[in-house]
Amino acid sequence: MSDVLDLTRDLIARPSVTPEDAGCQALIATRLQAAGFHCEHLRLGEVDNLWATHGSGAPVLVLLGHTDVVPPGPREAWASDPFAPQVRDGVLYGRGAADMKGSVAAFVVAAERFVAARPDHAGTLAVLLTSDEEGDAIDGVRHVARLFAERGQGIDWCITGEPSSTAKLGDLLRVGRRGSLSGTLTVKGVQGHVAYPHKARNPIHQAAPALAELTARHWDDGYESFPPTSLQVSNIHAGTGANNVIPGELQVAFNLRYNPHWDAPRLEAEIEGLLHRHGLAFELRWHRSGEPFYTPEGRLRDVARQVLGEFAGAPPEESTGGGTSDARFIAPLGAQCIEVGPVNASIHQVDEHVAVADLEALPDLYQRLVERLL
Amino acid sequence: MSDVLDLTRDLIARPSVTPEDAGCQALIATRLQAAGFHCEHLRLGEVDNLWATHGSGAPVLVLLGHTDVVPPGPREAWASDPFAPQVRDGVLYGRGAADMKGSVAAFVVAAERFVAARPDHAGTLAVLLTSDEEGDAIDGVRHVARLFAERGQGIDWCITGEPSSTAKLGDLLRVGRRGSLSGTLTVKGVQGHVAYPHKARNPIHQAAPALAELTARHWDDGYESFPPTSLQVSNIHAGTGANNVIPGELQVAFNLRYNPHWDAPRLEAEIEGLLHRHGLAFELRWHRSGEPFYTPEGRLRDVARQVLGEFAGAPPEESTGGGTSDARFIAPLGAQCIEVGPVNASIHQVDEHVAVADLEALPDLYQRLVERLL
Ligand SMILES: [Zn+2]
Ligand SMILES: [Zn+2]
Repeated sequence: MSDVLDLTRDLIARPSVTPEDAGCQALIATRLQAAGFHCEHLRLGEVDNLWATHGSGAPVLVLLGHTDVVPPGPREAWASDPFAPQVRDGVLYGRGAADMKGSVAAFVVAAERFVAARPDHAGTLAVLLTSDEEGDAIDGVRHVARLFAERGQGIDWCITGEPSSTAKLGDLLRVGRRGSLSGTLTVKGVQGHVAYPHKARNPIHQAAPALAELTARHWDDGYESFPPTSLQVSNIHAGTGANNVIPGELQVAFNLRYNPHWDAPRLEAEIEGLLHRHGLAFELRWHRSGEPFYTPEGRLRDVARQVLGEFAGAPPEESTGGGTSDARFIAPLGAQCIEVGPVNASIHQVDEHVAVADLEALPDLYQRLVERLL
Repeated sequence: MSDVLDLTRDLIARPSVTPEDAGCQALIATRLQAAGFHCEHLRLGEVDNLWATHGSGAPVLVLLGHTDVVPPGPREAWASDPFAPQVRDGVLYGRGAADMKGSVAAFVVAAERFVAARPDHAGTLAVLLTSDEEGDAIDGVRHVARLFAERGQGIDWCITGEPSSTAKLGDLLRVGRRGSLSGTLTVKGVQGHVAYPHKARNPIHQAAPALAELTARHWDDGYESFPPTSLQVSNIHAGTGANNVIPGELQVAFNLRYNPHWDAPRLEAEIEGLLHRHGLAFELRWHRSGEPFYTPEGRLRDVARQVLGEFAGAPPEESTGGGTSDARFIAPLGAQCIEVGPVNASIHQVDEHVAVADLEALPDLYQRLVERLL
């Protein structure tokens, strides 16, 4: 059994459902320490974070990952125990196999090999792990990044091991992600009978012009390779079913996917301003589920494009699609960020898996990236 | 026991829940025939209607009523059996006591007394009864009025016995009613994920400008003593709760209360035109729950104002408020229509009742109206 497969299995066997780390980081720290890394355990709230560095000074290259996994759901739904890793027909099954214990194991093996071969490399090679990427992400990389800002810890490049590949290893290089912002709006009216509208205030009528303006609004024309910012109303509800009652409240839920033209505070202010301008009596709860990040053309994208092409046999698609990742917290430190990892088809699902061949190629891929940067 | 109380009790004891007549009209026809009326039984679909006339030619005065009642609901909720009329403390209890078996019994007693006193009265005194006022009202007075139009049966004045009084007998004279029209709108979109709006079509976004225009529309400034026509959206629903799904459909229910500026076909055409102009893909089901009617100043209102004032001690409020009644079908024949009946506080509720004193005054009230008109 190969080193990376062995380590991935050891990690999967630890049931580290968010925010539990279940000993994964201790295992990794032991290995990295043995390889000459300096390890700092950052226990923040309920969350374990590990900051392991080799070398010193600039440039600083960070391999960023998470040891937590999403809940496996019912055991019966899986062909084998999600926390008892099993290889069947050249495929490794288990919760976290693709997202992202395989990548984390590959980071470790790549880092060990690199510092063994190049003990006096330039700058700093770091591994940053959290146990709260899949959850609230409050005391994970968000909190660590705040500490780094306070300490003046600069980061030049960050490679996140999120499973970015779509059909084969290395076919997609993620160079940014849109932000996601959700709002839950309650428009307050006064309930009444449809025959006596002057005694009521219909919140649907109050809200209609505001919703017309909000949903028609053109936010921007896109940003680099990002699509335009978009707002979508996902839910709207008022009324009890009776056709002769003017409802007292209207509920509206909406979500914005936004490019780096915007940030959450400015979007929130714009929308609140619009609602106030329409004279609505309302309550609005915001949920910021991810800031955008974007890495323009530069050294990191150049190197990654070459290396991924060597593995996939063709230059990767360079994408800003998909959901959200911890790169959003590192990017504001001034770092160029990319995401490179295995095929993501099975993540967050039952029978999550990774091809053993891909898993065994992954340390080489990361090592080659590190070699060309440091 | 007085004649009118006796007859009201006999009618309440017949459980004539819409569209059942349960023998009420046969009982009444026997009495009116004995008084010299010519009786025509119009069985239309499942509905019994009675057309009883005395005299001939113009002017034609119709006393309009219904023998059907709304369902009583659970027996336990009533203090006494809804179909076993009971007098307690000078109040008669039973389903239909106020709406409107008391009025129907008073019509009969008034008609008997009037033709006995004035056998050679001018014109025609008629009693028109249906057993489908509280239901669909398809084969009730709507259908009868169509037959009358075919026959050339003119009607000059129509007094409906609906319970119009609010606090004491005769305090309100209803001289018109608004129309009521309901619409159930389904706006069709294409379901999708909020992150990929170009693959979906959000029906909430499609509908928002149309709803803004529809709810802001000024329909008219009112009509005589009618308030302005008003549209109210009572229910709006889209979305399954998930915040990342663009819903495939939007449901909107609305109701219009309209004055005689409008009729249902023109309102429907206006609204469908508006929705088409906004390019919506939609289905729209209409429910016409009542055309408006209105009786301007003239002989009937003059006479009724005097007579009600004699009973209530002060001139009545003259109102166009409230829901809907069968007068809407008679008015288009060219008839002046009013509604005069007992206190309506308990109608359609448990323990429906009428004060025995009011019930015993009612034949005099109707008789006085008839005397001054024929
Ligand atoms: Zn992940
Ligand atoms: Zn009635």
